[in-house]
Amino acid sequence: MAFEMNALRDSLLRITPLEDEHLAKAKHRLDNLTKPVGSLGKLESIAVQYAAIKRSIDSPIGRRIIFTCAGDHGVVDRGVSAYPREVTVQMVRNMLAGGAAVNVLARHVGAEVMVVDVGVAHDFAATEGLLIRKVGYGTNNITDGPAMSREHALLSIKVGIDLVADCARTGVDLIGTGEMGIGNTTPSSAILSVLADIAPEDAAGRGTGIDTTALSQKIDTITRAIAVNHPDPNDPVDVLAKVGGYEIGAIAGIIIGGALYRIPVVVDGFISTAGALVANRLNPVINDYLFYSHLSAEAGHKRMLEALGHDPIMNLDMRLGEGTGAAIAISIIEAAVKVMIGMATFESAHVDRMVD
Amino acid sequence: MAFEMNALRDSLLRITPLEDEHLAKAKHRLDNLTKPVGSLGKLESIAVQYAAIKRSIDSPIGRRIIFTCAGDHGVVDRGVSAYPREVTVQMVRNMLAGGAAVNVLARHVGAEVMVVDVGVAHDFAATEGLLIRKVGYGTNNITDGPAMSREHALLSIKVGIDLVADCARTGVDLIGTGEMGIGNTTPSSAILSVLADIAPEDAAGRGTGIDTTALSQKIDTITRAIAVNHPDPNDPVDVLAKVGGYEIGAIAGIIIGGALYRIPVVVDGFISTAGALVANRLNPVINDYLFYSHLSAEAGHKRMLEALGHDPIMNLDMRLGEGTGAAIAISIIEAAVKVMIGMATFESAHVDRMVD
Repeated sequence: MAFEMNALRDSLLRITPLEDEHLAKAKHRLDNLTKPVGSLGKLESIAVQYAAIKRSIDSPIGRRIIFTCAGDHGVVDRGVSAYPREVTVQMVRNMLAGGAAVNVLARHVGAEVMVVDVGVAHDFAATEGLLIRKVGYGTNNITDGPAMSREHALLSIKVGIDLVADCARTGVDLIGTGEMGIGNTTPSSAILSVLADIAPEDAAGRGTGIDTTALSQKIDTITRAIAVNHPDPNDPVDVLAKVGGYEIGAIAGIIIGGALYRIPVVVDGFISTAGALVANRLNPVINDYLFYSHLSAEAGHKRMLEALGHDPIMNLDMRLGEGTGAAIAISIIEAAVKVMIGMATFESAHVDRMVD
Repeated sequence: MAFEMNALRDSLLRITPLEDEHLAKAKHRLDNLTKPVGSLGKLESIAVQYAAIKRSIDSPIGRRIIFTCAGDHGVVDRGVSAYPREVTVQMVRNMLAGGAAVNVLARHVGAEVMVVDVGVAHDFAATEGLLIRKVGYGTNNITDGPAMSREHALLSIKVGIDLVADCARTGVDLIGTGEMGIGNTTPSSAILSVLADIAPEDAAGRGTGIDTTALSQKIDTITRAIAVNHPDPNDPVDVLAKVGGYEIGAIAGIIIGGALYRIPVVVDGFISTAGALVANRLNPVINDYLFYSHLSAEAGHKRMLEALGHDPIMNLDMRLGEGTGAAIAISIIEAAVKVMIGMATFESAHVDRMVD
């Protein structure tokens, strides 16, 4: 096997916190721009974080990619989704044709969309915009046993790390996460429940739009999956393998890779944040390299972000996934970086400073 | 006098609510796109509103302008601001040179910035990007008497309406408001206090960054201004004249003009929303034509938005003004409109709909 737990552990150990020196430099730059100190709020903290990740206060955001990771879920057989399983394949095709929401929003913010087949139960033909990195053909039904083997969980993480390694080679400045997988709020809620010790009824939500009966069935499904599999809350890879999904593993890997290669990652909504939770529990320093794009309307997302100790950039009541929230946040992050680089200083513009 | 109260009243009477037909058409389009119904949250309500204003579901956002209205305030003599009065002129020059935050953010979202001198206590030379529409050379100190005459208040509103009339002629699709005026959170808080019947201590905040002593002085200033001038809460023009400002009047006029000429207006932060409050109290239908960009970190803004009955698009803890919040919101509004126009439908993409 190409990727053992030891290899992952080595990667995790190479991740270091952001340096005070670079954080301070960025703050100093911002405080000299023609505006009251701190008056651009979150734009300023975003700019400081971005500059510290890049170790530069003059680094504009060039190429940006959203990786929409796709996978199927055996648990869909239990009626946990409002859509049939076939929609995963149909939506991947829609994305490859440029017609999905993430495509429209990515074009708006100048980002490429790459669809990554990590675990769809279908063989796609080679297509522009599709990366075939298949680890499996959909997960198993998690109420019967583990979603996947531990080996597959590690491989799905490796898919994500390798994607970012490629980005580092080709010069990508900002990465967004996204996903497509009918049924994938269920494993995400299960991960939240186990890793943050939250009851299934507080971790589950209505996903793409199930009714109250189906929600109760979904909560029951999560409860059973945890009871059957006994995922170990102190072993995030075990949790991913037992109640997770291939695309969630790849997202966790992208997030680890971002911290490893110092490319900031913009985390989309509920499912992407489940990947972030897995990554964070492997090494909490990873959070330094993440931007949480938005608070999803999916019920458990607030608890998940609280477990990560981070505020999202915005709240637009979105709950679509795909990378749609990440796309919009990319534009806000770029705005913040442009402010830091492009505004006049008090000196250059001959503007008086605050009265003491 | 060119612009009487009767002329304003005639304009206000020509404003009509958005038509159900156009709202329904936009909602129908959105519900047929390849996403769960309502899953793009605020993006969907924004798109519906935009389409209904334009009476078209296929109208992309072309030219967009941010009007940054500038004026000085006699009340600055009372120490209500952290910056000296001269900074109004200095910052206008900074904006004309392209170095202010609003310039950077407007460029980011493809918007032009036009600085409108409505009431700066200085004569600017004719400059590209500056519209000289001077009604007065700064307001009077509102603790001594009215900020301006009723005639001047009406003229400042007319400045705004006329700017939008020009936009309608030249083909502008979206207008953002903004302002520059040292001291102008004080009149904005006074307007809030009078028009929404809120105590000065709940209407006032720290503006660009005053300390607790200065805040207490500011609250006292607002209390005195109201006691001295007796603004009539049932007459928004009287409130504007007695405790307002020239740039606030122009913003109210832009907002009225937007509704009159059916060009949506993106309202910036606290001071711009004070202009929206004046306009709304003249005719509440105007709210149909407005997008409230963000919740400002300025203390009274939440109360002001509550008085208007509207939620802002985002909350980035910004408190700079200039039009910076409007700029970022323009990008989100454009994202929403692009989704409505550019996404595939279930039929066109061969994607299954939700299971019943």
